[in-house]
Amino acid sequence: MTETLMDRRARLMGPNVPTFYRNPVQIVRGEGVWLWDADGKRYLDCYNNVAHVGHCHPKVVEAICQQAATLNTHTRYLHDLVLDYIEQLTATLGHGISQAIMVCTGSEANDLALRMAQAVTGKTGIIATDNTYHGNTAAVSQLSTRRPPIGGRAPNVRLVPAPETTAPLGGSLAAQAQVFAEHVAQAIAELEAAGFGFSGLMLCPVFANEGLLAPARGFLDPTVEVVRRAGGLILCDEVQPGFGRVGSHFWGHDALGFAPDVVTVGKPMANGHPVAACLARPDVMAAFREAFGYFNTFGGNPVSAAACLAVLQVMREEGLQDRAADTSAYLLDRLQALRHPRILNARAAGLFFGLEFGDEGAGDFTADLVEDMVARGFLLNRIGRGGTTLKMRPPMPFGRDHADLLADALQAALDAA
Amino acid sequence: MTETLMDRRARLMGPNVPTFYRNPVQIVRGEGVWLWDADGKRYLDCYNNVAHVGHCHPKVVEAICQQAATLNTHTRYLHDLVLDYIEQLTATLGHGISQAIMVCTGSEANDLALRMAQAVTGKTGIIATDNTYHGNTAAVSQLSTRRPPIGGRAPNVRLVPAPETTAPLGGSLAAQAQVFAEHVAQAIAELEAAGFGFSGLMLCPVFANEGLLAPARGFLDPTVEVVRRAGGLILCDEVQPGFGRVGSHFWGHDALGFAPDVVTVGKPMANGHPVAACLARPDVMAAFREAFGYFNTFGGNPVSAAACLAVLQVMREEGLQDRAADTSAYLLDRLQALRHPRILNARAAGLFFGLEFGDEGAGDFTADLVEDMVARGFLLNRIGRGGTTLKMRPPMPFGRDHADLLADALQAALDAA
Repeated sequence: MTETLMDRRARLMGPNVPTFYRNPVQIVRGEGVWLWDADGKRYLDCYNNVAHVGHCHPKVVEAICQQAATLNTHTRYLHDLVLDYIEQLTATLGHGISQAIMVCTGSEANDLALRMAQAVTGKTGIIATDNTYHGNTAAVSQLSTRRPPIGGRAPNVRLVPAPETTAPLGGSLAAQAQVFAEHVAQAIAELEAAGFGFSGLMLCPVFANEGLLAPARGFLDPTVEVVRRAGGLILCDEVQPGFGRVGSHFWGHDALGFAPDVVTVGKPMANGHPVAACLARPDVMAAFREAFGYFNTFGGNPVSAAACLAVLQVMREEGLQDRAADTSAYLLDRLQALRHPRILNARAAGLFFGLEFGDEGAGDFTADLVEDMVARGFLLNRIGRGGTTLKMRPPMPFGRDHADLLADALQAALDAA
Repeated sequence: MTETLMDRRARLMGPNVPTFYRNPVQIVRGEGVWLWDADGKRYLDCYNNVAHVGHCHPKVVEAICQQAATLNTHTRYLHDLVLDYIEQLTATLGHGISQAIMVCTGSEANDLALRMAQAVTGKTGIIATDNTYHGNTAAVSQLSTRRPPIGGRAPNVRLVPAPETTAPLGGSLAAQAQVFAEHVAQAIAELEAAGFGFSGLMLCPVFANEGLLAPARGFLDPTVEVVRRAGGLILCDEVQPGFGRVGSHFWGHDALGFAPDVVTVGKPMANGHPVAACLARPDVMAAFREAFGYFNTFGGNPVSAAACLAVLQVMREEGLQDRAADTSAYLLDRLQALRHPRILNARAAGLFFGLEFGDEGAGDFTADLVEDMVARGFLLNRIGRGGTTLKMRPPMPFGRDHADLLADALQAALDAA
């Protein structure tokens, strides 16, 4: 069955279409933190942040069904649901960020964020890290090292070394914070010397794609100071840390204690319904809206808005941010107690965990561990420069009982490795 | 109520957020070809192509509800629904186009199409018309004259004069076809001289945004010949004409009788659920997939695929393409029989109609007519260089009875104008 599906995929989707795992799984049903494959095998979902409040949450499904049966049209007509949602979402944000453009994917949101920085500054230079991913449009893929753009990287883009997740070159994390800020300052100087000027720095506050740095509060202060001095914008990609995942705060940037100019969100917003948004202060939004006549046909439609509102409601009713904080501390303890000579460290940014392995062949070791865990019924994956960090980023209802199942299975897999 | 909503929009969405009509309508419910506003007023929807098989079609709603309650995840796991859909959709396409990348918006699809042309040709020069719109990403907005890009137009883009909808400079439409091809040839020569080379021509086969040229079969043959000779790709934006709207054929390019290399689709695919796709021949897809590692989190998820499959099913069961052909001929007759001295011509590309007005102040006249028709309970709008063409592009279930209502109301509005 799997082989037939793989053949069909190749025939209908072409080559190099990414799948997870050496033997890709065929998932057919989901509920809460559980997924089932076509053979009826059950998996604990330790990976998927899109199903933020749990797979097929009945309240989100009901909101989608009800609104889809009532009306689904675009925002050139007036409708209150999209306004209700932007009002509720921006209420969670500080730093004067009170307006939104609703779109359909995180890529679209980041594509907008780049142009907002250009509209505000009149400059085109942009900076990101050298081991990141912010999306797949032609413009945003300029910032991705793992998906280098067709035709080569544009000269107005500078990629600075991402902080290391272990054994920082500069010694302590605090020293790394300074080193990172100095790299950004140098890139700004290069962009200005090349005539592009500097429009902004796009980053994920927990460096999720760089290997989940899970930095301490204040880590980005020196960098933010450098960006501000140069007149650039902080474009904060909250697609992974946002929506309560960091546990201590609703947003990653608030956990780190800095003020972004633009915030982008996507995957978890509507539990899988295609929604994303680019949020900004009114002065930033006005600069963009005056420079460019933007309209997105599907963006902010009533069904999407209803799904988004339901996610916020479920998060409140089920206390999912607090639950993430609780599970985070509990599972981090358990990960730190795992025994294997290759383990370098375990780290967490709320309900987002990294377990890093060292020594020669750590990448292969981690890859094998992922496969073994899938065989044991646990879906997870790996990140980091060499793929040496086990990545666990489960749906928000993931609790202590699930954490125990995961940690026990991990120890068993490590013992067998 | 309307004023409060407009104030809320400005506060939460910023300035210059587009609405339709001088007094924007607040639509709260839809069913088939009908929409209702918050005051209970009913409108005949003569405009919205997104609700392709009719607003809130129960079979599409049911498909969404059922799949949303079962599983919604991404294509890194295997799932048969997305494959079933690509198989059914590509079965409607000739010209060797048998593969797809599923995305969420037409903008994303066209952003991919541009890169496919680059990947195949190794060149970056791109051509579109000077009065069009293909989407809103940073890259695609380079092709839009109505939404000029921030920072100015990139030097690898050439915009050629769109054919005129009336009084063609070259005389007949056949002569215009030659003139258009010559403009494209000249732009190709300029791109080659400038060192960009030529990657492709992006166009809508019925020139929908240019004012709905509704060209005759064969109109684009000289242009296609020019593009082929230069080694470029034809990137066919079927967002508006596709999915049976042209009536005679499922696709606009087949109605015109030419073979595109890449076809993009969006709005009508899933009746409002955010889905789009970029379709190509295997050789084109392979060139792109080898040059660029593309993945779209929401693209091709099982809920989107289920919604897409339901739209195709409803189209077959209700014979909507044939219905579009029948209504097209019937309503075009009625439009051509309308009496007013300003009327220049009425034209149709299937269930997509233009009624063009002339003489001084034709733009204001058409704008007033739109407003009067909205007051009479008919939603439509205007297009063309001066906004002098009334644009009617209803959902596909629009029939002769609805055509009569529309034509009668139009004559009454014209009599009162």
